[in-house]
Amino acid sequence: MIKYLAILLCFIPLCLSAQQQKEEVDAFFIRKIYDKALTDARCYSWLDYLTHRIGGRLAGSPQAAAAVEYTRQMLDTMGLDTVWLQPCMVPHWVRGEKEQVRIVNSLKMGTIELKALALGNSVGTGPRGITAEVVEVKGLDDVDSLGESLRGKIVFYNGPMDPTELNTFNAYGKAAGQRVWGASRASRYGAVGVLVRSLTTRLDDIPHTGSLAYDDELPRIPALAISTNDAELLSRLLQDEPIRVFLRSTCEMMGEAPSYSVIGEIRGSEQPEEIILVGGHLDSWDVGAGAHDDGAGCVHAMEVLHLIKQLGYRPKRTIRCVLFMNEENGLRGGRAYWKWSNDRKEYHMAAIESDRGGFTPRGFTADGHDDVFNKKFKKVAEWLPLLEPYGLAIRKGGSGADISGLKEQKGLLFGFEPDSQRYFDYHHTAIDTFDAVDKRELELGAASMMSLVYLLDKYGL
Amino acid sequence: MIKYLAILLCFIPLCLSAQQQKEEVDAFFIRKIYDKALTDARCYSWLDYLTHRIGGRLAGSPQAAAAVEYTRQMLDTMGLDTVWLQPCMVPHWVRGEKEQVRIVNSLKMGTIELKALALGNSVGTGPRGITAEVVEVKGLDDVDSLGESLRGKIVFYNGPMDPTELNTFNAYGKAAGQRVWGASRASRYGAVGVLVRSLTTRLDDIPHTGSLAYDDELPRIPALAISTNDAELLSRLLQDEPIRVFLRSTCEMMGEAPSYSVIGEIRGSEQPEEIILVGGHLDSWDVGAGAHDDGAGCVHAMEVLHLIKQLGYRPKRTIRCVLFMNEENGLRGGRAYWKWSNDRKEYHMAAIESDRGGFTPRGFTADGHDDVFNKKFKKVAEWLPLLEPYGLAIRKGGSGADISGLKEQKGLLFGFEPDSQRYFDYHHTAIDTFDAVDKRELELGAASMMSLVYLLDKYGL
Repeated sequence: MIKYLAILLCFIPLCLSAQQQKEEVDAFFIRKIYDKALTDARCYSWLDYLTHRIGGRLAGSPQAAAAVEYTRQMLDTMGLDTVWLQPCMVPHWVRGEKEQVRIVNSLKMGTIELKALALGNSVGTGPRGITAEVVEVKGLDDVDSLGESLRGKIVFYNGPMDPTELNTFNAYGKAAGQRVWGASRASRYGAVGVLVRSLTTRLDDIPHTGSLAYDDELPRIPALAISTNDAELLSRLLQDEPIRVFLRSTCEMMGEAPSYSVIGEIRGSEQPEEIILVGGHLDSWDVGAGAHDDGAGCVHAMEVLHLIKQLGYRPKRTIRCVLFMNEENGLRGGRAYWKWSNDRKEYHMAAIESDRGGFTPRGFTADGHDDVFNKKFKKVAEWLPLLEPYGLAIRKGGSGADISGLKEQKGLLFGFEPDSQRYFDYHHTAIDTFDAVDKRELELGAASMMSLVYLLDKYGL
Repeated sequence: MIKYLAILLCFIPLCLSAQQQKEEVDAFFIRKIYDKALTDARCYSWLDYLTHRIGGRLAGSPQAAAAVEYTRQMLDTMGLDTVWLQPCMVPHWVRGEKEQVRIVNSLKMGTIELKALALGNSVGTGPRGITAEVVEVKGLDDVDSLGESLRGKIVFYNGPMDPTELNTFNAYGKAAGQRVWGASRASRYGAVGVLVRSLTTRLDDIPHTGSLAYDDELPRIPALAISTNDAELLSRLLQDEPIRVFLRSTCEMMGEAPSYSVIGEIRGSEQPEEIILVGGHLDSWDVGAGAHDDGAGCVHAMEVLHLIKQLGYRPKRTIRCVLFMNEENGLRGGRAYWKWSNDRKEYHMAAIESDRGGFTPRGFTADGHDDVFNKKFKKVAEWLPLLEPYGLAIRKGGSGADISGLKEQKGLLFGFEPDSQRYFDYHHTAIDTFDAVDKRELELGAASMMSLVYLLDKYGL
């Protein structure tokens, strides 16, 4: 026994040193990734082009087509093994003329124009608009309580985002239901239109759009977001007097249009059948320029491939960049990709989506199939000492809408997680523009994703 | 032996539970601090006033006097035990007319205006300006190598900030010497003027001012910062041809002027002689509005007192907020405070300065006298489990210029540490304005400082 212990003890220093050596090699390479990203990255200039030369890229729009072509060209310059476009049909929704939302009969304030944006996928009001009395509610449940008294009314959803949530995405998650389901819930009781408080913790004059989903069984009624300042104003007025509002929006669903997700890949040298996906979504809302949502995510993913090439790294596994079309109002690019990938019996060992903006990286959330998640997450957690010096943590949590359908392949799904404080200042607004993105913060995001890709590729799951 | 072990084992659960209980009380109170800061803080509206209604607040200026009066009034509204002004004499430097820096003889490019700002404390060029040939150097050492060949020349310090430093303050620290000491070093060899590359990792058109220090033994020559884009341009031209530059600045040191630091305190109920200081500096550069540097730090410190009052917390120790005057170009407020405090034999058990901007909090750096530092730091490190849920770490590192002179009192000195990526986009520029500060990020900073103050006050050091 003592003999075996002695032999074992002799080996420990050797083992440790091999382990340490491996860690030093990894630490050195990750440092190289950051150095390269902070000096030679192209992500910021790609984002400049996407936002300034192309602009808002709603699925089905000419700008979305331009973004497909631009990013395809950029991927083509990188010397990848394959670059291709994957077709999908997308809903083609158009905003139409500038929305009008007007308080028409306040005894105290007279006529007041409110800052508004139609919600994506909403029907319009017809060219003459509609006028009706407004009823304020705090959320979907209130609507059920009020029931038939809402007939002929405009329902005003005024549930605020909770400012005390440290992670603003949690606050968004709690408040977004009224935007997504509010129109059909109100329609169930005969309401004729819906106003929704913009989803931000700020008090300002900037309306936030975003998609709604209609229940096919119910009449479709128009829905618009108003700014938080205007929501506060409307709520104050409603405390004193009945308020009627005029709504006019010529927004319209034009049917379906052909579009594409853009894909580029470097084929693995040893296990090409194990795929590591990096992605973002190429479409954005029509207002603003989709800089944080999700131009940043797209150029993060593209930069991963660029860094691999710049660093002369030869991946063992296949690294695939996917710029998904139509995340915002249909997820058609994602769905088409899942079907295509599942039909080919592919295995995504890992997928990382960046769709929370281009802010300073804080780490990743990880998700996966119950059968494999704990075991695989444990392996990833072993890499934390290499990532923590860069301010990166990995925690359990959702990944990204576009990759969520890959869970059945039983790899790990990651969401890149930057600092969340400013995201909902810009989300789905006219001010989600290039100047809201900081160059270093964006580059650090790409370096973070590349570092995780490197470890995934080297050690597998 | 076994018996004692058994007795010991019986006690452990009891001990743990008392400890756990204490931690739960603390966790609960810190959560309350954050809730309050994210819903009822006043820091953002104070900063709005300081930046929009008062603006840039260089020591000795009317705006600095307005800032003294405004913050005194705000502290007076809080029901503190004492609010007072502490006098100090400050250097009164004025920028004068808009600076001119012009390349006058490029064969390739003709005449080119460069974006420039005189460095604080610099002498002017005289009303007619000066014209001389430019010699580029990368730093102070290059000047010594070139020596007498610099006679009659303008020395152009073009050492860039290292973009690969993850913490931008490290990069700033490595590059700032050329700005502070560059003029006198060049003057030693007969140079007639100095241009300095702006201290930022960005490439843009925005010059960054900042203070220089003259060596009393040497002639004072004028020094101006130029934007990084212009520094790159000038450097490129110098590779092909000799370049002469015209400099004109009417900036001037006007002598000394009376001013004040602003102080408010809540006297401790049990150990009032143990002081916990929170502070920032009230002066800023004249260009821009000093929003991040250091309006944010001032309103952070003020908000700590406001939160104490709002939460009904009764501190055992004295909590003192100090808004120091003249950090930027003299540190006279800090020096006056140290002398006053040392003369009264005060004991600052802890001091926290916020002077790194109003970005998302990452934690604190801690510093202190060698005699006590390790022991006290160890105690603070025990609180980390309470702070980590809020993204806060505590690491060894410098504290803040205004509190550095309190080290002899043998307490702990802290620097509030927010995310550093964007700070040098704005530092000492015309774009350090209110809109560069995010409300939530600012409020989280105040909550972080208040949380540390609470633990310091409750447990002592």
